[in-house]
Amino acid sequence: MSRAVRVGVVGLGYWGPNLARNFDRLAESELRWCCDLSPALLDRARPAFPHTRFTDRLDDLLDDPDLDAVVLATAVPTHYPLARRALEAGKHVFVEKPMAQAAHEAHELAELARAGDRVLMVGHLLRFHPGVVKVRELIEAGELGDLLYAYGNRQNLGKVRSDENALWSLGAHDISVLLYLLGDRPTEVSARGESYLQHGVQDVVFCTLRFPGGQLGHLHLSWLDPHKMRKMTVVGSEKMVVFDDMETDRKVTVYDKGAYRNPSYHNYGEYISVRFGDIHIPRISNEEPLRIECRHFAEAVADGREPAAGPDEGVAVVEVLEALERSLQAGGETVALETV
Amino acid sequence: MSRAVRVGVVGLGYWGPNLARNFDRLAESELRWCCDLSPALLDRARPAFPHTRFTDRLDDLLDDPDLDAVVLATAVPTHYPLARRALEAGKHVFVEKPMAQAAHEAHELAELARAGDRVLMVGHLLRFHPGVVKVRELIEAGELGDLLYAYGNRQNLGKVRSDENALWSLGAHDISVLLYLLGDRPTEVSARGESYLQHGVQDVVFCTLRFPGGQLGHLHLSWLDPHKMRKMTVVGSEKMVVFDDMETDRKVTVYDKGAYRNPSYHNYGEYISVRFGDIHIPRISNEEPLRIECRHFAEAVADGREPAAGPDEGVAVVEVLEALERSLQAGGETVALETV
Amino acid sequence: MSRAVRVGVVGLGYWGPNLARNFDRLAESELRWCCDLSPALLDRARPAFPHTRFTDRLDDLLDDPDLDAVVLATAVPTHYPLARRALEAGKHVFVEKPMAQAAHEAHELAELARAGDRVLMVGHLLRFHPGVVKVRELIEAGELGDLLYAYGNRQNLGKVRSDENALWSLGAHDISVLLYLLGDRPTEVSARGESYLQHGVQDVVFCTLRFPGGQLGHLHLSWLDPHKMRKMTVVGSEKMVVFDDMETDRKVTVYDKGAYRNPSYHNYGEYISVRFGDIHIPRISNEEPLRIECRHFAEAVADGREPAAGPDEGVAVVEVLEALERSLQAGGETVALETV
Amino acid sequence: MSRAVRVGVVGLGYWGPNLARNFDRLAESELRWCCDLSPALLDRARPAFPHTRFTDRLDDLLDDPDLDAVVLATAVPTHYPLARRALEAGKHVFVEKPMAQAAHEAHELAELARAGDRVLMVGHLLRFHPGVVKVRELIEAGELGDLLYAYGNRQNLGKVRSDENALWSLGAHDISVLLYLLGDRPTEVSARGESYLQHGVQDVVFCTLRFPGGQLGHLHLSWLDPHKMRKMTVVGSEKMVVFDDMETDRKVTVYDKGAYRNPSYHNYGEYISVRFGDIHIPRISNEEPLRIECRHFAEAVADGREPAAGPDEGVAVVEVLEALERSLQAGGETVALETV
Repeated sequence: MSRAVRVGVVGLGYWGPNLARNFDRLAESELRWCCDLSPALLDRARPAFPHTRFTDRLDDLLDDPDLDAVVLATAVPTHYPLARRALEAGKHVFVEKPMAQAAHEAHELAELARAGDRVLMVGHLLRFHPGVVKVRELIEAGELGDLLYAYGNRQNLGKVRSDENALWSLGAHDISVLLYLLGDRPTEVSARGESYLQHGVQDVVFCTLRFPGGQLGHLHLSWLDPHKMRKMTVVGSEKMVVFDDMETDRKVTVYDKGAYRNPSYHNYGEYISVRFGDIHIPRISNEEPLRIECRHFAEAVADGREPAAGPDEGVAVVEVLEALERSLQAGGETVALETV
Repeated sequence: MSRAVRVGVVGLGYWGPNLARNFDRLAESELRWCCDLSPALLDRARPAFPHTRFTDRLDDLLDDPDLDAVVLATAVPTHYPLARRALEAGKHVFVEKPMAQAAHEAHELAELARAGDRVLMVGHLLRFHPGVVKVRELIEAGELGDLLYAYGNRQNLGKVRSDENALWSLGAHDISVLLYLLGDRPTEVSARGESYLQHGVQDVVFCTLRFPGGQLGHLHLSWLDPHKMRKMTVVGSEKMVVFDDMETDRKVTVYDKGAYRNPSYHNYGEYISVRFGDIHIPRISNEEPLRIECRHFAEAVADGREPAAGPDEGVAVVEVLEALERSLQAGGETVALETV
Repeated sequence: MSRAVRVGVVGLGYWGPNLARNFDRLAESELRWCCDLSPALLDRARPAFPHTRFTDRLDDLLDDPDLDAVVLATAVPTHYPLARRALEAGKHVFVEKPMAQAAHEAHELAELARAGDRVLMVGHLLRFHPGVVKVRELIEAGELGDLLYAYGNRQNLGKVRSDENALWSLGAHDISVLLYLLGDRPTEVSARGESYLQHGVQDVVFCTLRFPGGQLGHLHLSWLDPHKMRKMTVVGSEKMVVFDDMETDRKVTVYDKGAYRNPSYHNYGEYISVRFGDIHIPRISNEEPLRIECRHFAEAVADGREPAAGPDEGVAVVEVLEALERSLQAGGETVALETV
Repeated sequence: MSRAVRVGVVGLGYWGPNLARNFDRLAESELRWCCDLSPALLDRARPAFPHTRFTDRLDDLLDDPDLDAVVLATAVPTHYPLARRALEAGKHVFVEKPMAQAAHEAHELAELARAGDRVLMVGHLLRFHPGVVKVRELIEAGELGDLLYAYGNRQNLGKVRSDENALWSLGAHDISVLLYLLGDRPTEVSARGESYLQHGVQDVVFCTLRFPGGQLGHLHLSWLDPHKMRKMTVVGSEKMVVFDDMETDRKVTVYDKGAYRNPSYHNYGEYISVRFGDIHIPRISNEEPLRIECRHFAEAVADGREPAAGPDEGVAVVEVLEALERSLQAGGETVALETV
């Protein structure tokens, strides 16, 4: 496909307009449709996109033979049914995270995309963040030595949701990052949390994930917190790296420090020594991750290739979320992922 | 007792000299003895305390009828047996944290002290930190509203121990603070962690504690971390407070912010609003907590009264540590504290 | 005037579109015209303002009897001639800072506005920043005691200009803030700086201002600096206040600390004691200062009243800038402001 | 000299005990004498140095043929007369900064040392700080490109002195660092400041220094400030470096950024581009600068070689201070250093 990919954005609430704006501005894509059930939201978006068609009927998009792809930024419970309809109509699909609320639904979408040879990509935005990509590069280059553990902090006094708890709303980000950085899926997980503001909707959740290589993952998720943190810390045997999305010029910090066994140790006492070296803060591109993500989708559609954050990753994140939710409901018991 | 309390410090390794120095300088106490098995450590300490007697025999202290109290800063495994000997010899006892490595030993010490009418105090230093005391005052005054949850971060690349894991070495501090601030003991706990540097000695531990009032506590403990954190965050329904011991002039920060149910909510969507108010950083005394702690012990001995961080608190911390250790060994399963 | 004020924005380069957007969105104003000599800039702005007329001829605006006010966001050297034409055409005028490049031109504009009974306001944006307004309120309420001195730091590696040096480009902000906070004009000033990147265009400038009440002002201005600072510190005899525009939630910090003469001093040595109290960070409205500024102008036009940052303030800032520039050219000699 | 250098410390007030402690502990030196006029200060210091002789008579030191060197930590006005007496008595001399209160006195001391072939070293502590030495190494290695300018911030609410103003008390540090880093002496200087707490004793002083190579230096000195800063920023044509002594693990930060002329510039407008690269924080030794300084003096005496911070540097700092003081008294006029 040498022309721009024709895209229709569904859902013009909080996030959809950002997707629409990016697909509209990219050379690789053309914003052909905007769709929402709310006339008010359609009216609000209209002036910014003079060349785009507006409708409250999804079928207008699905029936348009010139439309290549549907972008779903609707409420979470609609991700699965709308993505299914779009795939069944033969459209490529970009669906916001999480791709579904249940693993079997996610699997079904992945299967549909595969059967129909359609691109299916999930909006795991941080996967496209130049800072996260940099951390992944450092890991792959062996700079950190053996990966030991990683933990995420996503805390704030912010948007309290009623249709998702903090695990699903905040955790989807960190789980996709953890899976990407460690290059693996956890074998068992557990979660504990509490609902303070709304019955049955956890505001604060702590998650533990164990990976096949012995690595530990931990997430501190909260929308009821005095700090504002969006941070992932990765500890290796040689170096430690922090990705901090609240920083402007210092998104990634590499600490050349660690602990090691001192060969000349004594019979008892502390024989582990610590080592402190330089700190390095590599320059990270400040291109907007959302723009990178949208371009990546348009290129995957144009080239007919498997996107990053494709069906497998999307499914894996939903499986981990589902297992964590099961543990959360069961008071923190360990849930093995093979049993999902 | 109107004269200065006569104290003997046992153990002149890392921490003991600090205790000796404080008891030596206080008007309320007199450093009568220093004791250690190592001649080198005795020699190193001697010049600083010209009026103090030095010995490598604990019995010299226990047999001295003019000695009021024994201060134990020895290796953790010796806390219980040495404290027992000192109490049996009729001495008042200050023992470094944790007071014992098993709850039944801690109970036994508490019982001995009660039976012999001796002061028994545990070195839970942060209990005497003016910043922690300030947080407790704010809670007691109702400033925070209902207490919802609290979490501690004690992370560093620092002293890696082989005789204690990070739970016992670092967690004892935060557990004593949590119990003090919440004014209660947890009913169930769990811990997950991993040993990266030494087989069987956890370097990184995550703990969850549930309190009778519905509060959640969480601890992130690590001596293998790029950050240096010593922080406790307390979230109330009205305000949030952070105690940060890495700060110099801003140990305590009070955030007048929170979330609340908006009475005029819509049929669906987010009906929880967040509220942001002033931030207040009260002036905290910069008197050394160790000096306050030592004086408190001397005064308790002089006045024959129950000290803060006395037997009950000391026992409670050991019980919680023991329950967390059991959970840690069992892979994170919930351990109820009634069953200890 | 009960209807919305009709505004025409001239200059659609870097800053003009922000002004246009705000006047377009405010209920108090209507964006009737956009004007620029560049067809490209007109085309770029057009889609965002479908109800606005676009032209490259200023006369189209000046000849429009229904246009109330002209907003000038053009290159600095054009501020004076364009403002004069607009005032002579009977329009109210908002002109970006500095209002002119010479004091006599600024005086002339002020005189024209007075004679024609037109509103003339200068874009001293920080004057409308809720954080700066808060500092002014604290001063007026006497919270700081006697004002002793104040200093500004405006440093960055950023936009290097060739039509203005750092004094005029950066200093105009801080001078307007200093004059506003101290409620007075300096009597003498001096400036020293250096041109490293372009011959004759100072990149780094240090300014000293002396006020009638004995207060000292100091500015550190640089666009060739590793730090990014936008800060004003005000020291009073009772309290000290910092306005830091790089902070998000902590724009204003009030330090209850100071030094005082200890009445029981000794015969010699230090008899000044220092006092440390609480730190307070008041909640500041996060309404965009530019929006407040634009609304203020629209209201001043509608109500026919003298605006804040009116002709007198605009003239005073240019006089101070001119005196500082004279000192800068003379190698730092003191320039008295009466002689301007 | 293969044995330890025998040192006598004169002045046991605030700083002297630190010098005594270091000379006592070093293998390279032996603390033979402590001297002070105050019996109380002698008594307070005595227990820490059991092998040292104590006296209130300087002559006891000067008459001791086995004493190699005298270390002066007395009140500033006594630096010159006491250093002269010690040099005349044939002793090597370490004198705290500033070495004298007038340039002609400093010259006289330097001449005495030269004539008598004695080591004379001034306590410009920061010259021995591993962080400052690191910055100097970066400059010498050409990492920063051409040196453009440097500025120091030494601000605090702290020790207010009555025998020195902020220029002499705080500025001596930064001037010695500036001279060391730039490897040159300024040709003209100016200073402006104000006395708020004590008549005639400036609390806040701003200094400008011009160097032969076109570099600008600036100092912001204050002991009446809400911030606590001890920082030196050096801007080169290629990189920028910050030495921040308030940091613990990040004393030196190297910014690979700068501005450069874009060869493909337009006819008008901004043709200077800015460049942002990595940030690097080299590991700095945390050996105490005071210990390094004392060892350096002992070694210079032992080896009979010229010390760093020797007479020439000490004289240069006093000359600059004297010139700045003259400017300060004259209201900020430029003072050329050749005329001193």
